[in-house]
Amino acid sequence: MKTYLYIIALFLIPFAASAQRPVPPNSPEVHSDNRVTFRYFSPTAKRVVLDGEFMASPQAMTKDAAGLWSITVGPVTPDIYPYSFLVDSIQVADPNNTYLFANERFKRSIVDIPGKVPMVHALKDVPHGKIDYRYYKSATLDTLRRALIYTPPGYDASGNTSYPVLYLIHGGSDTEETWTKVGRANLIADNLIAEGKAVPMIIVMPYGNVRPRPMPSFTQDVVNDLIGFVEANYRVLKDSKNRAVAGFSVGGGQTLNIGLTHTDKFAYVCSYAPYTATEEFKENFGNWSPDKDQINSRLKLFTISVGTQDFLYESVKQNIAMYQEKGINLKTYIVPGYHTWMNCRLFLATSLQEIFK
Amino acid sequence: MKTYLYIIALFLIPFAASAQRPVPPNSPEVHSDNRVTFRYFSPTAKRVVLDGEFMASPQAMTKDAAGLWSITVGPVTPDIYPYSFLVDSIQVADPNNTYLFANERFKRSIVDIPGKVPMVHALKDVPHGKIDYRYYKSATLDTLRRALIYTPPGYDASGNTSYPVLYLIHGGSDTEETWTKVGRANLIADNLIAEGKAVPMIIVMPYGNVRPRPMPSFTQDVVNDLIGFVEANYRVLKDSKNRAVAGFSVGGGQTLNIGLTHTDKFAYVCSYAPYTATEEFKENFGNWSPDKDQINSRLKLFTISVGTQDFLYESVKQNIAMYQEKGINLKTYIVPGYHTWMNCRLFLATSLQEIFK
Repeated sequence: MKTYLYIIALFLIPFAASAQRPVPPNSPEVHSDNRVTFRYFSPTAKRVVLDGEFMASPQAMTKDAAGLWSITVGPVTPDIYPYSFLVDSIQVADPNNTYLFANERFKRSIVDIPGKVPMVHALKDVPHGKIDYRYYKSATLDTLRRALIYTPPGYDASGNTSYPVLYLIHGGSDTEETWTKVGRANLIADNLIAEGKAVPMIIVMPYGNVRPRPMPSFTQDVVNDLIGFVEANYRVLKDSKNRAVAGFSVGGGQTLNIGLTHTDKFAYVCSYAPYTATEEFKENFGNWSPDKDQINSRLKLFTISVGTQDFLYESVKQNIAMYQEKGINLKTYIVPGYHTWMNCRLFLATSLQEIFK
Repeated sequence: MKTYLYIIALFLIPFAASAQRPVPPNSPEVHSDNRVTFRYFSPTAKRVVLDGEFMASPQAMTKDAAGLWSITVGPVTPDIYPYSFLVDSIQVADPNNTYLFANERFKRSIVDIPGKVPMVHALKDVPHGKIDYRYYKSATLDTLRRALIYTPPGYDASGNTSYPVLYLIHGGSDTEETWTKVGRANLIADNLIAEGKAVPMIIVMPYGNVRPRPMPSFTQDVVNDLIGFVEANYRVLKDSKNRAVAGFSVGGGQTLNIGLTHTDKFAYVCSYAPYTATEEFKENFGNWSPDKDQINSRLKLFTISVGTQDFLYESVKQNIAMYQEKGINLKTYIVPGYHTWMNCRLFLATSLQEIFK
């Protein structure tokens, strides 16, 4: 039976001696000089294009006689980059790369160019925290919700130490795994804690997508359900000075909605390239007349970060101006770059060194 | 810039009003009568075939004028099934399905047909354990190794309760996530514990792939490194009567190697469709002259499970006969079906109700 034979063939691949089909192409192949070769096998495709966030624009790949498409690019600046192949205009992840971008819409793979000096997101031989995969009951959304919860090295549920908590929200169509699998939030925290640059903290990464009308109910879910779950299950400090919220893109907008409307609960609000063209944002900030003195006294840190080439840059600048007009103290990080997780990791690494201090 | 526009387009998909390209096809679409419709968009592909483990053999899909390929199959018996598309003979996962098979070689998606009655692997409103994503130092392999560690509902590191431990190993080319993401081991345990059919236990799911020569060093890693890490970091019972090892396929072979050569450490050995054509297996069992009385007195349970259509069926039968010839007591589960995770989940659900009792 074909399925049967097929499963055998796949199963036997790891055992070269008995492999039933050619060894898959090596892709991506990161060379010692930081050039990278990408390969995609398709004898029938008419055009295969590499679309990577390390390139200014997509580049066509070339096909050999056997139907193996390839391209070598770079040297590429060390980092972790998403990329896809466009096979006759259809976006596909690299079938030979296990490292996939955790997302509900687009299909991208990740290439890790480590470079000579380990980056802040590198897996190093330092004490490592752990990531708990949890379900919690959301009365607000009347369902079980997923959340990942990072606890720092040395976290001891039986100990006397309680920790501050960062609530960290992914982008639109991302998942609760994107902040760890693409953002490497756990490794960034491990490394900064090991260097004494960040205080040991718990990082809660919920699943932020709620459709059709995301944000209002998600704000209620975080404030009314998630915080309570975390406080009931982890040794956490429960005052606003020990609670932060941060997020990227749609999650950056959620961060502003959650944090600035609950300054009694969050003393740290860090928004990365926020998407704010939402009903909830208009409701919260359309005719906003804040008590700036109260907000400024409650917020120990309010940051907005964005890349100058981010497609949301103009909108973020207007958003920043709005807070400034209202007299809300905020710190801005305007850096080069697009709407990317490369920038996201830098924004997070910066925030982790500023919060809870 | 194309990348820039491209990222915008992808980013905006969740916001239909401003979507820059057609809404992706709905695939897989599970109908109320358990028929399932699969869709794949490619105007240029010559032939697209659905290859699913719910079918006797792959079936060609049909293309409409717009280039959308589709097929409706079933009704399908409720379960979770891997499937792929063969696009001009190239295996691809379903680009519109977020639920992927965790594997380092093949690219398959998962379709979940829940049916009317929740199955043993279903997410139910029962108390849920959690899964810890951990790194541990392996002196044996001189590296950091990944492991997932399930702790049961009510697990309290600060409490006085200690738990038995099941070491559960994935198949060849699977990852440390396959037993949870495909096998649903955590939900199966949650449900059986809630029904009082399984005792609360910790389940340790290591990354089992060690190349080029997998098994000897992995056995040493488990016995010399992983067990110590678990016992240092979790409230576990440390005698052999509270330690079990189980695994599927290559992991089933590793289970036999680990368990039967360390009956002082494991009183429960459960092997699912074991792959035993390995150097280590020959070394351990080629000229094996076991002290059967000692082994039979130490092992509280030794099971081998396999489907009659499994491509390893004949090899597993010979393996069973070998143990029987040597006078080793074992229990066998010979069931219908192929070398699949549908059977794996059943084997695990059976073991969880038999061990630590």
